[in-house]
This record gives sequence, C-alpha cells and structure tokens, in this order.
Amino acid sequence: MDVLFLFRIKEHQEEMLRSEFPEIRFLFDRKTDDPAIGSSEVIVTYGTDIDESVLDRAKNLKWIMVASAGVEHMPLGRTAELDIRVTNVRGIHKTPMAETMLAHILAYRKKLQDVYAQQSRSEWNKKIRGTELLGSKALILGPGAIGGETGRLLQAFGVRTYGCNRSGRQAEYMDEMVSFDGLLEALPEMDTIISVLPSTQETKRLLGREHFAAMKDTALFLNFGRGDLYEEQVLIEALEKGRPSAAVLDVFETEPLPADSPFWKMKNVTVSPHISALSGKYVERSLEIFIPNLRAYLDGRTGEMINRVDPERGY
Amino acid sequence: MDVLFLFRIKEHQEEMLRSEFPEIRFLFDRKTDDPAIGSSEVIVTYGTDIDESVLDRAKNLKWIMVASAGVEHMPLGRTAELDIRVTNVRGIHKTPMAETMLAHILAYRKKLQDVYAQQSRSEWNKKIRGTELLGSKALILGPGAIGGETGRLLQAFGVRTYGCNRSGRQAEYMDEMVSFDGLLEALPEMDTIISVLPSTQETKRLLGREHFAAMKDTALFLNFGRGDLYEEQVLIEALEKGRPSAAVLDVFETEPLPADSPFWKMKNVTVSPHISALSGKYVERSLEIFIPNLRAYLDGRTGEMINRVDPERGY
Repeated sequence: MDVLFLFRIKEHQEEMLRSEFPEIRFLFDRKTDDPAIGSSEVIVTYGTDIDESVLDRAKNLKWIMVASAGVEHMPLGRTAELDIRVTNVRGIHKTPMAETMLAHILAYRKKLQDVYAQQSRSEWNKKIRGTELLGSKALILGPGAIGGETGRLLQAFGVRTYGCNRSGRQAEYMDEMVSFDGLLEALPEMDTIISVLPSTQETKRLLGREHFAAMKDTALFLNFGRGDLYEEQVLIEALEKGRPSAAVLDVFETEPLPADSPFWKMKNVTVSPHISALSGKYVERSLEIFIPNLRAYLDGRTGEMINRVDPERGY
Repeated sequence: MDVLFLFRIKEHQEEMLRSEFPEIRFLFDRKTDDPAIGSSEVIVTYGTDIDESVLDRAKNLKWIMVASAGVEHMPLGRTAELDIRVTNVRGIHKTPMAETMLAHILAYRKKLQDVYAQQSRSEWNKKIRGTELLGSKALILGPGAIGGETGRLLQAFGVRTYGCNRSGRQAEYMDEMVSFDGLLEALPEMDTIISVLPSTQETKRLLGREHFAAMKDTALFLNFGRGDLYEEQVLIEALEKGRPSAAVLDVFETEPLPADSPFWKMKNVTVSPHISALSGKYVERSLEIFIPNLRAYLDGRTGEMINRVDPERGY
C-alpha cells in the first residue's frame, strides 16, 4: 500500500513512520504530477495542491489527510462523490494561534509599540498608560478548538468570553453564547473581537459596515480565520473612522498581501503574514494526528478516525 | 483628626473619603513643608518624599500609608523607633504588572518586533517562527502577590513555574520551589527568569556574573523588581555574550535611565520606563486598601490593619 506525502518531513520522522508501519511504502516530498499518485491509497497534503485533475489520476485514492485546518481549497464536492474521506489537523493550531493572539492583544493593551518607539529615541517618559484585560469582554467568532483555547487563556486573565457561532449553542470556555443572528446586538459591549472562522458559504462577508460601526472606539479587532470574512475596503473605512480602534490581521483576501494594500501603512493595523499557526512543532503535531488515524484505517476501524471533514459544512 | 495626602486624588475620590469619614479633616495634595504636617496623625504618600526631617516635624504622626509596594526610600529605622506604623499597597500592582510581563514574554516569543519591522517595509515574509510558552519553564524570583499572579497566568499557558525565595518555602502558583541558595543550580533549566524582588539587604546584588552565565542562550530575563538586583555592567556583559538571550527591564539602578546607558541601544534589551505597575486604576485600588485600614485604625482594631511593613525585612 502506498502513502504519498506532497511535502517534506524530517528524516527522523520518515524513519519513525517506516518503522511504525513496515507494511506501507511511504513516498515523501512528491509533487502532484508524480506517477505514484495513481497507486496511492492515502495522500498527505497541506491542502492547496489537490484539484479535480489530481483526483482523476488518483485511481486508488481512499483518504486525503490535509495537514492544515482550512480545507477551502479542496474540491470537497468531488471527494464526496468519489467517496474519498478527508481528514484535517484541526486542533493542532490551537496552542501557537491562541498564544499569538494573546501576544497581540496584550501588546496592544500595554502599548508595547510606544515603549519600543520611546526606546529608539532614548526617551524616558512614564506617560504610557496601559489598560487592563481584567474585567474586559471578548467576543470570539468561531469558538471551536482554536477559539476555545483562546477563550480559556482570556478567562485566565479575568476576561468575560462570548462565543459566537451559527446556532448559539454552548461551546467550551465561553461564559456566554451569541448566535450569528445576535452578533450585531452584542458587538457594542465588546473590548476585543476575534475571528477564527473558517471560510464557508455562511462566513463569507459575515461582517459588514454595520458590524464595524457597532464596535467601541476602543475595541481591538483580530482576524486569524480567513480574509473573506468582510470586504477589505469596508474594514479599511471602518478603521479610518476609528471603529474598531485597531486591527491585527493574520489573513487577507489575497495572500501574499499586495504591495499596494492600504493595510501596510495604516497606523492602527498590524499586518501579520499568516504565520500565527506556524510553530516548530507543526509537522510533529500533524503526525500525532495522522499516526493513530492511519493505524485505525489499516485496522478497518475507520469509524474511529478523528478530524473527519464534513464536505457539506466545509470544516 | 488630620489625614494629610502628599499627592493628588480625583475630586470624586476626595468627596467619597469626606462622606465616609465626616469626623476626619482631610488635607489633599500637600507638600512635606506644609505646616499641617505637625498636626497630622496619618500621612498618605507615594513613599519617596518622607525623610527624617519630615518625621521630626510630624509630632502627631502615628501611621504612614505608602501608596506603593516598594518602601526602600522610607526611613524605616526611624519610624520603628518612633513607633509609627507603616503600611503599603502591595497586591494592587499584581494585575497590571503580571499582564505587562506576560505581554513582554509573549511579544518576545512570537517575535512581534520582527512582525512590526516587516510591516514597516511592506514585506510579506512567512519566515518568522515564534516559539511556544507551552511546556517551557519559568523561574520567579519573589513569588509574592505580583510573582504569584504572574505564576498563575504562566501556568494557564502550560508553563512550569519555579518560585525562588530566601527559604524555599512554598508559595502560591508555583509548581516547585527553590531557595536563594539553590538558585544557581536551577538557572540552566529555565526559559524565562523573572525578578519582582524588592530592594533589601538580601536582594541587592543577588545576581552576579555566574548567575547570568548559567542561563540558557535562549532564555529571556525580566526585571520588574528593583534595579539594584545586579550591577548593570555585569548584565550588559552577559547580554553581549548572549546569556541570557534577551532582557526586558522596567527598573534600573538610576532612574530615569541616563541617556548614555548602553541599555538604550542594545538590540536584545527592551527598556520600559518603570511603568508596569501603572494603570488607570492605581489610586482607586490604593484607596480600596486604605479605607478599610483607616476604619480599623479609627475603631482601635489596629491588629486588623493589612499590609503592615516590617521595618526589619523592609517589605
């Protein structure tokens, strides 16, 4: 049985897989035009290089393991028709992403950029006044694994957390829940608004002019989900009007962010080049999801495989 | 009875005190040369303006309330001789200080200054790799109210906390304890080393060349206690050698930090102008300590007064 990786992993990880699964032929660091696509039963990919033409050639394919949380570039309609199961690695991003979001939130509230700027001028000035997280309110759009971990950390700082999902059903580490329908009403209360929503038909353009207009003029907005949550021009105008007060953006409609995007030069915007999920431990954690799933697959216990992607919901 | 404030508070706070204690004459925003020093039974100060000459003139003084945690500028030997009780506001700094330390630790680990620098060049480059707090180790010199709150937050991030005090006796939110004698041996394990120690005879120059040399070349050192914990030249040389990897300093031997201090220009140093305890809520929280103490004092329940300063220990 062939298992083909469309990316590179470390040598000791290759050896570990070969010794754990001696019955499998692993093919590492291949491209989608590799002839072995035709014989592979399992393909492991970051999820941006699989299109229908790859599926047409993958005659033996039964399972695609996507080493990413977002699967919006995957032809999920076609994999469903062909009965190819798709799993992802949702959950493994939660630590680096939640830590990174907390870093940005705290850096903003404690005005660290002002501290750095003063130092660059050798200026001792005690006028910088941070504000506190304790007692503030945060709304988290998408309170799943990543949003929940972010909520858990915010709660440790004494922040009241409001999870926001389609139905408003309870989610972990959220003090209160809000449905998508109740979002507009909840926004005026919030000090921090975070989105970690995936890109789906329901989340595209979920935020419009009226949502930003409803935010406090002291609110910090973070988008660590996907860039099509709003039209970027709408957010740019909102930030120019001062609601929200500032934004930290790790995702954009077009990535890399074009050189002429106004975001680069805006004083109240932090541009992060879609790095918040990256960590030295990324592949290691992906394999921790993959290995038990591969074992279950080989043993015919496919019902026990975790992180199945629902092709209808798109996550 | 006269209660004299050596600083200004807000008008609504003045009114609140007058209505809570109609029997007291409050004198706000006075200087130490004010004649009312002679009649005042209680003086409220930030703690840097009381010297023995003030005490000589304060013939009726029974209690000095210091609206600061550090009392190293107070003539504690003389107040003890004169049987003047001294209280401080230790504990009120814990939230702004712990939040600020977490901001700096996370900003360092997630390389936010690199993110800001890339943005200033409109550069999209995903090579920035943050490291994780999860699973790291932090040593906290001075695991009292502030150190404990910092430990609590670090634990929420999955950091193993090592408290370090004179005796090694257990302290809250510390997974393990180290005595001052065991410090040198513990340092090579630590990813983050934090000091929030007050300035006392025992903490002055507690860290020497050998302590910094024992730190990892990836360790982050933070001093949010007092600047005389080491000779600054020793820390400068240690940072030039790369152990610790970087330092965030909120306190210095001389404040304001002199314009010719090498710290200003060092790439691996963040200079913070002793602002980490400041918060819009500072005076409000000081009064929350002061009011019940004043009530206890008036009622003769002086044994119930909190935050007494021990003149021998100096905190």
